[in-house]
Amino acid sequence: MSDDLVTPIPTRWVGPLKLSGDVEGEQSVPLATYESPLWPSVGRGARISRLVDDGIRISVVDERMTRSSLFVAPSAAAAVAASRALSDRFDDLAAVVAAQSRHAKLIDLDTEIVGHLLFVRFALTTGDASGHNMVTLAAQSLMETILTWRPELEYGSISGNYCSDKKATAVNGILGRGRSVVAEMLIPSDLVDAQLRTSATRMVELNVRKNLVGSTVAGALRSANAHYANMLLAFYLATGQDAANIVEGSQGITYAEQRGEGDLLFSCTLPNLIVGTVGNGKDLPGVDQAIERLGCRDLEESGAGARRLAGLIAATVLCGELSLLAAQTNPGELMQSHVLMERRAGGRA
Amino acid sequence: MSDDLVTPIPTRWVGPLKLSGDVEGEQSVPLATYESPLWPSVGRGARISRLVDDGIRISVVDERMTRSSLFVAPSAAAAVAASRALSDRFDDLAAVVAAQSRHAKLIDLDTEIVGHLLFVRFALTTGDASGHNMVTLAAQSLMETILTWRPELEYGSISGNYCSDKKATAVNGILGRGRSVVAEMLIPSDLVDAQLRTSATRMVELNVRKNLVGSTVAGALRSANAHYANMLLAFYLATGQDAANIVEGSQGITYAEQRGEGDLLFSCTLPNLIVGTVGNGKDLPGVDQAIERLGCRDLEESGAGARRLAGLIAATVLCGELSLLAAQTNPGELMQSHVLMERRAGGRA
Amino acid sequence: MSDDLVTPIPTRWVGPLKLSGDVEGEQSVPLATYESPLWPSVGRGARISRLVDDGIRISVVDERMTRSSLFVAPSAAAAVAASRALSDRFDDLAAVVAAQSRHAKLIDLDTEIVGHLLFVRFALTTGDASGHNMVTLAAQSLMETILTWRPELEYGSISGNYCSDKKATAVNGILGRGRSVVAEMLIPSDLVDAQLRTSATRMVELNVRKNLVGSTVAGALRSANAHYANMLLAFYLATGQDAANIVEGSQGITYAEQRGEGDLLFSCTLPNLIVGTVGNGKDLPGVDQAIERLGCRDLEESGAGARRLAGLIAATVLCGELSLLAAQTNPGELMQSHVLMERRAGGRA
Amino acid sequence: MSDDLVTPIPTRWVGPLKLSGDVEGEQSVPLATYESPLWPSVGRGARISRLVDDGIRISVVDERMTRSSLFVAPSAAAAVAASRALSDRFDDLAAVVAAQSRHAKLIDLDTEIVGHLLFVRFALTTGDASGHNMVTLAAQSLMETILTWRPELEYGSISGNYCSDKKATAVNGILGRGRSVVAEMLIPSDLVDAQLRTSATRMVELNVRKNLVGSTVAGALRSANAHYANMLLAFYLATGQDAANIVEGSQGITYAEQRGEGDLLFSCTLPNLIVGTVGNGKDLPGVDQAIERLGCRDLEESGAGARRLAGLIAATVLCGELSLLAAQTNPGELMQSHVLMERRAGGRA
Repeated sequence: MSDDLVTPIPTRWVGPLKLSGDVEGEQSVPLATYESPLWPSVGRGARISRLVDDGIRISVVDERMTRSSLFVAPSAAAAVAASRALSDRFDDLAAVVAAQSRHAKLIDLDTEIVGHLLFVRFALTTGDASGHNMVTLAAQSLMETILTWRPELEYGSISGNYCSDKKATAVNGILGRGRSVVAEMLIPSDLVDAQLRTSATRMVELNVRKNLVGSTVAGALRSANAHYANMLLAFYLATGQDAANIVEGSQGITYAEQRGEGDLLFSCTLPNLIVGTVGNGKDLPGVDQAIERLGCRDLEESGAGARRLAGLIAATVLCGELSLLAAQTNPGELMQSHVLMERRAGGRA
Repeated sequence: MSDDLVTPIPTRWVGPLKLSGDVEGEQSVPLATYESPLWPSVGRGARISRLVDDGIRISVVDERMTRSSLFVAPSAAAAVAASRALSDRFDDLAAVVAAQSRHAKLIDLDTEIVGHLLFVRFALTTGDASGHNMVTLAAQSLMETILTWRPELEYGSISGNYCSDKKATAVNGILGRGRSVVAEMLIPSDLVDAQLRTSATRMVELNVRKNLVGSTVAGALRSANAHYANMLLAFYLATGQDAANIVEGSQGITYAEQRGEGDLLFSCTLPNLIVGTVGNGKDLPGVDQAIERLGCRDLEESGAGARRLAGLIAATVLCGELSLLAAQTNPGELMQSHVLMERRAGGRA
Repeated sequence: MSDDLVTPIPTRWVGPLKLSGDVEGEQSVPLATYESPLWPSVGRGARISRLVDDGIRISVVDERMTRSSLFVAPSAAAAVAASRALSDRFDDLAAVVAAQSRHAKLIDLDTEIVGHLLFVRFALTTGDASGHNMVTLAAQSLMETILTWRPELEYGSISGNYCSDKKATAVNGILGRGRSVVAEMLIPSDLVDAQLRTSATRMVELNVRKNLVGSTVAGALRSANAHYANMLLAFYLATGQDAANIVEGSQGITYAEQRGEGDLLFSCTLPNLIVGTVGNGKDLPGVDQAIERLGCRDLEESGAGARRLAGLIAATVLCGELSLLAAQTNPGELMQSHVLMERRAGGRA
Repeated sequence: MSDDLVTPIPTRWVGPLKLSGDVEGEQSVPLATYESPLWPSVGRGARISRLVDDGIRISVVDERMTRSSLFVAPSAAAAVAASRALSDRFDDLAAVVAAQSRHAKLIDLDTEIVGHLLFVRFALTTGDASGHNMVTLAAQSLMETILTWRPELEYGSISGNYCSDKKATAVNGILGRGRSVVAEMLIPSDLVDAQLRTSATRMVELNVRKNLVGSTVAGALRSANAHYANMLLAFYLATGQDAANIVEGSQGITYAEQRGEGDLLFSCTLPNLIVGTVGNGKDLPGVDQAIERLGCRDLEESGAGARRLAGLIAATVLCGELSLLAAQTNPGELMQSHVLMERRAGGRA
């Protein structure tokens, strides 16, 4: 068990993207991927953003990290009683977390009861960290405290899968986990035509038929998009994130409406971006530089760096999603460009 | 848009794992990850496999790759008529694919109708490739052919999201996409005790409460496991896979039953491993060597290399899943080992 | 445990609806419900259908009934081997069913493997019956036969929930269960305006925002509609169906597109209508008459009565769905009409 | 459009069930159904409850009714701003509801943003009513108020499907809708043996394999049970409920563990019982008497009648679920009893 080495993932900086709202200015972004067509795909979206007045408008809606612990009660009634007692003592629980960490803060607590099982979902803000370790440490202390308060409860599991980490579930989108971001761009009809070689009508139609109806028949869960996972993976790897979190990160919704005579209002809503600028993997040489170059270091307010990062990620997702959907409105373009790209990149099939 | 560079992901070979069934012998596996505790976690499972008679038993259940194309009919009746006509001409469609590629073979076709929209899901075997490009090229030819046959249909999209690629959906598990593998190990009670410091009873109980019940309340979709995504990501990156496919890859089920006086029958079922040994990313220097070292190159039968790879991945998932669940049956062990590991790895919080 | 009595559900015949395609002519439909506003709501849709050239166009896409049995194998490998053996002996299994029943015919068999558990989903056509009992009887015989063939397997459960009956799942829509029907109507813009007091644009917009996007964020499963369950319940009760099957019956998709200058192409896709004209409940006096009056008795071809019934149900769903969505495009209309209706019906709040 | 008549659903009072916890004493329950085997099935569970010390223990966990309204903002940023403003003015919104109704009280407000769409989910307590009309009326007033406050918002829909009513979604279980009840019974091993002709081991095993694993592969959504929908439908019809709400009502979880040497701890968790004792349908003669006989009328505290009703429903579900699962542990019993029952009931196949 050794052979220390590295796997080098081909990486390019793409852009710059033009941004406004909760992230402002122009910024290039790093994408580490084996799938080289991703670079020009995101690049096309970035180019369009630079031609649009506000560029890509970013709204950071929420931020939190969660861990759900599982307690086993002697009966359902005991589980219900414990659940109510915990809600009543929220401030005491928050104090436990505060005593343990400068960065972690308990902001919410949700419970689910199944028979005599009690799932308690702790929600915390975690500063500039994604917060995996912080919430696990907090959950550990909170469990110990709770098991002292309520001796009728038994330890079930530090994590009861109601968190839920790196799994496709509904709870994360509904109760929140990670940074929640909306990226949006209003593209004038002439750019839709010249840059995307399509029309607002066709984009809206495709988004409804493919991303909404197609995902519905596929049995998708809170997910309606073409390929968020591609952009997320590449950005996460380049910035030292735990890229397994693309599982829930990719559960987002692309939405498009026509405005005026043919302008396109196009948005990507990403409720579960579990990312940070400090912690595991962030101090590796290349990663550290990438986060620095993204302007996500040394911001004054705690959490501001991670919020900026999440905003940049959402904007990058929008660029790639816009580009692929436009290509899919045009029979033939998709494969032609794909094949060309591959050939240029060295002849892989 | 340039700055070519690489993102180096820390990588270790872990094991060897001992295997039987559709993959046999001992084999170490490469894991590229920023999350260093993953290595000893998988390592513990591997060690146990070497102490068990059959090691990890691998069954490769199915293999196929899919792409769903979207056609727009003038009416629902026309969509239904076209759907039936396509099923009737399956052999002709298979001939279209055969004429285009030596490796791709059309093996199935499923349709879904929503109003006047017709989604056609093509299923192909793709030899040793994961098959993303192969199915897209095939879908392109098949669409062209079908649009010629049925002039009443219009092009909707080369991909209609009923495929479905890198999205958490139900269709992939039910109709199949990727290699479908079950990894299973029967662990004698003394090893459960000595190596995992737990018991079969506690493991079964935790798996039911956390992975099955906890996932259910979280609103999980065809998914009941603790952290498949972690092992998949690390293995996929180290072997040049398109790691965005961990989204559907991680939709699998951990199942455990007690046997005899305290032996543990433990399995991981992974229906959607979208992996290959040729194609995009597989010819990069480190990757090429990794696939070679895994014994997945130059096997006689087409597809045998990818099947072996999928089997090794499933076995690796089992090792990591077993290890984490065992840790979670023990209050305290999880965080202690995690914290220790982190400190040893250089003091990250 | 006795007190035999009846619960009388208020019932009205609404319509007639005008139909074409797989069901033709004009037909009134019975709706048994405590929710009196349902009658005028469906009535408005019916009235529109009579003003449209083809009325409501019906396509019956598929029919089948299923039961999944659960077998327990000694290992995953044994489960896989058994699964393959069953597929190979499909004809023998079909003969078992044929020997038992004139009406039931085995048409498909799907398997799912989780560790050493083997779920076998039998699909049958069941003539004019919904088929609950027929598939259970068939599954019983098939299990006995299979357990004889494969002595290594153990009985798990006659029903393993992969069927799946009266549960909200993805499998029914994807593999089929019940009659699958699409009802569609092309409504000229003048009728959209005069009868629905709305426009095609607003209807399309509302359907996308509410039924597709709203359902997606709600975490809906293969379901995008406003209130299919209401019409299904009322029709099922009036015709002696097992109305608990509205659970999966209501998992359907409303789809709308504008055509031409403002015509509305509106459809309801209902893949899981589990209904019949014979069997449990169908011979009660009122029910028997209702099925007779619907023209679903004594048709020549086996299954034709149940298909006609399913078509009428889908058309009724379309009427009610169209009417409610139109109301919701108009702020105020919904509650006003609802309140008025309630008052007229006797002052309930 | 007339022919006023009634559909008479065969109805029996079954029991009494013995209860403790939030509902106490012995109580028979009415079941209106075409499926006559349901009566003895629930009857068996009721008989067992009378032989057990505490009978069926009932916990009413929560109660609320919801309606989500859809607003359309000019941009995502405007949607986010409006969302925050609404949360800040919660008390003002609560006052709007209070001014309108004595019974309705706003207790919570959740928002979801998709691009520039804003879904606002209002949660209210509604006394003894199920609350469909009350929340719709409240939503109407709240929308009008909000549209006055925020002129930049446009009306989208009074109901945006994030409510969500009569649809299989995840949101209801996670955020709550209806009365949430757990019913639980601890059955001594001798009763498991004598009354259910099975063992705790076999019951636990079946529940895990069928209800948890089987539902998972079926792609179930927050649902793991055998047939809740059957009991719900029959009880809802007999008590004048809007039985279309069995769609979400049936999304519940059966959980079983062995205790001691062979006792069975068996529970049914039903988070979404949308029922009431006043309102639509409750004043029909038979229904009114049924609610009276159930002891759900004229209780002192507002809501106490509806809570008792919900508790009785959950207990009834437990009886039927317990009985069917026990039957399914015994190959043959299920169909034999079913066939016998049918024959006795008049020879239907």
